[in-house]
Amino acid sequence: MYPASLAKLMDELSRLPGIGPKSAQRIALFMVKRGPGDAQRLAEALLAAATNTKRCRECFSLSEDELCSVCANPSRDRTVICVVEEPRDVLAFERGLSFRGLYHVLGGAISPMDGVGPEQLHLTELLNRLRDSSVNEVILATSSTIEGEATATYIAKLVAPAGVGVSRLATGVPVGGDLDYVDEVTLSRALDGRYRL
Amino acid sequence: MYPASLAKLMDELSRLPGIGPKSAQRIALFMVKRGPGDAQRLAEALLAAATNTKRCRECFSLSEDELCSVCANPSRDRTVICVVEEPRDVLAFERGLSFRGLYHVLGGAISPMDGVGPEQLHLTELLNRLRDSSVNEVILATSSTIEGEATATYIAKLVAPAGVGVSRLATGVPVGGDLDYVDEVTLSRALDGRYRL
Repeated sequence: MYPASLAKLMDELSRLPGIGPKSAQRIALFMVKRGPGDAQRLAEALLAAATNTKRCRECFSLSEDELCSVCANPSRDRTVICVVEEPRDVLAFERGLSFRGLYHVLGGAISPMDGVGPEQLHLTELLNRLRDSSVNEVILATSSTIEGEATATYIAKLVAPAGVGVSRLATGVPVGGDLDYVDEVTLSRALDGRYRL
Repeated sequence: MYPASLAKLMDELSRLPGIGPKSAQRIALFMVKRGPGDAQRLAEALLAAATNTKRCRECFSLSEDELCSVCANPSRDRTVICVVEEPRDVLAFERGLSFRGLYHVLGGAISPMDGVGPEQLHLTELLNRLRDSSVNEVILATSSTIEGEATATYIAKLVAPAGVGVSRLATGVPVGGDLDYVDEVTLSRALDGRYRL
């Protein structure tokens, strides 16, 4: 019903995560209304990002250079490595500004259902980093999901021979969280992990 | 915190309607993960749509040709013109397949708050179509908002001298609508517009 090139754009847009047919239509009509100048700008930004963004050769976080801004920063604490699933998790920590160590991005979590085994994750590279450097703690910051927990357990066993300390993020009630809205598993874990005042 | 070209893409994406910073981040990371091939495809679709999509010279709906598929279709009923605000409204009617007449896209609704007066809408062109053709009914299908109602009233007066029939879409309870969820103004309008069985 729409002109061919517009229908094609809607189709391409609706493949993006979180964009349904209705949002795709809205965005496509918006771009057509704004004209070729805006479309050109967005197209260039897309190509530049997809072409220039590489993985840091040390931690596999996103970077335009060989080393990401964290790995390249001489003031970071090189004795602690925080292991996360995805590059966006690095950003979540960096927003907080409280962690001063390094990261290691696995590129996912072990999930037999999705055909992701340990060999698909950057685990060999993690072991190499532990072997070569002065790291004395590995913080397992994978998600608090079944896959994330399984991955954390797997890595804890894997890095044990390296003789570094291994820790896991605390599970509990989120700050500002109303107890009434916290699920029972989280509440039970928060109770197990209670600390003395 | 993100590499420059990725941050730029997120910024561009978050200017799109319905895309907040979180969605922009998700889409940008998705595009980077999928690589330059997918980005290239989306970029080309964007440019093609923005460059090729023009306005139909007759009804101002979107088209890649001089005339849109509705205006160019010889089997459409040329005695009825359905006046709508935006190209997406044409699609809403076309999805239903029950309307067989022509359209006229105004390009908005009269809205003094947004600085849109009658002269910004394709009204002269509507009058020209009424003068030249065999149209005997104009259906005012602008939105049921204050601006849409004002626009409908304005057009009704404007086209009166042309001597064609003017009608307005019915207002009432949507099909499948639970009365409990219908607002009082709609309900009162539905009551006013009740028909005998």
